[in-house]
Amino acid sequence: MKLKSLVRDIPDFPQPGIVFRDITTLLNNPQGLRHTIDTLAEQCQKQDLVPDYIVGMESRGFIFGTPLAYKLNVGFVPVRKPGKLPGAVHAVEYELEYGTDTLEIHQDALETGAKVLIVDDLIATGGTAKATADLLAKIGSQLLGFAFVIELTGLAGRKVLPDVPIISLMEY
Amino acid sequence: MKLKSLVRDIPDFPQPGIVFRDITTLLNNPQGLRHTIDTLAEQCQKQDLVPDYIVGMESRGFIFGTPLAYKLNVGFVPVRKPGKLPGAVHAVEYELEYGTDTLEIHQDALETGAKVLIVDDLIATGGTAKATADLLAKIGSQLLGFAFVIELTGLAGRKVLPDVPIISLMEY
Repeated sequence: MKLKSLVRDIPDFPQPGIVFRDITTLLNNPQGLRHTIDTLAEQCQKQDLVPDYIVGMESRGFIFGTPLAYKLNVGFVPVRKPGKLPGAVHAVEYELEYGTDTLEIHQDALETGAKVLIVDDLIATGGTAKATADLLAKIGSQLLGFAFVIELTGLAGRKVLPDVPIISLMEY
Repeated sequence: MKLKSLVRDIPDFPQPGIVFRDITTLLNNPQGLRHTIDTLAEQCQKQDLVPDYIVGMESRGFIFGTPLAYKLNVGFVPVRKPGKLPGAVHAVEYELEYGTDTLEIHQDALETGAKVLIVDDLIATGGTAKATADLLAKIGSQLLGFAFVIELTGLAGRKVLPDVPIISLMEY
């Protein structure tokens, strides 16, 4: 199955000159959703990256992270925007093109030393993925790797990430 | 498996006097996540509620909606906050305790007449679920029912919903 044929290009979103890679057309296709999750899971198994926990970032990391956790039979840990998680959190601030943003994780979300795979729909500049890795370092997790459905290679996001394996299913 | 034992009570969140039912402790437990999704899927099958599409609301509806879509081998359609979906959308405004909020769906997210199940983590007053049903009515979907992991029965959210079957795994 050619996953790329299910990703829709939307020109000039969210701003003029940007081509947005829309994964909603992949998600609403039953075979597309299934093939995406199964391929992520196969890659994890092949590369010895099956973790104790999948960590996914709000919101689109939830979309791929939870079914992958379900498929691999491991736990899922959400990383969320400020004020959303009800328990005690670790927070990390990171830079955006303009200004900063913050991500949070529950302090007791996983045990020290637990093996973790970070999952998101897309890697662009890598800022969100790097911030999530920083959060996990605060907890003392063992970061096995990253998995993305789409990688925008021109933005070289993998260069800012820790030196662990990176799965990506489609490159643009 | 007793799912309720995996839900954590957080007093006074998000405001004093409220007990927040925290599902992150269910999600990070592999058996808890698996049992939740499998039980939702079994209930869908038993009640003849297997849809063409699962519709899940940002953000926690994504967490349960996508693995359920994966398990049932159907498509997943996200309902999102304003400005997040890149294509042409239908929008619906709905009332909160203070002020209003808006939800959006892609106009071409699913075919007219498609069978849909709306999934969210929790039903409280039912405002979000009702707004999502209104969005689907604009598209001409056939709403089969709703599925929630948690129902706060004291808030009587089901009374504001259309007269279709409602699955809920835990009641408080």
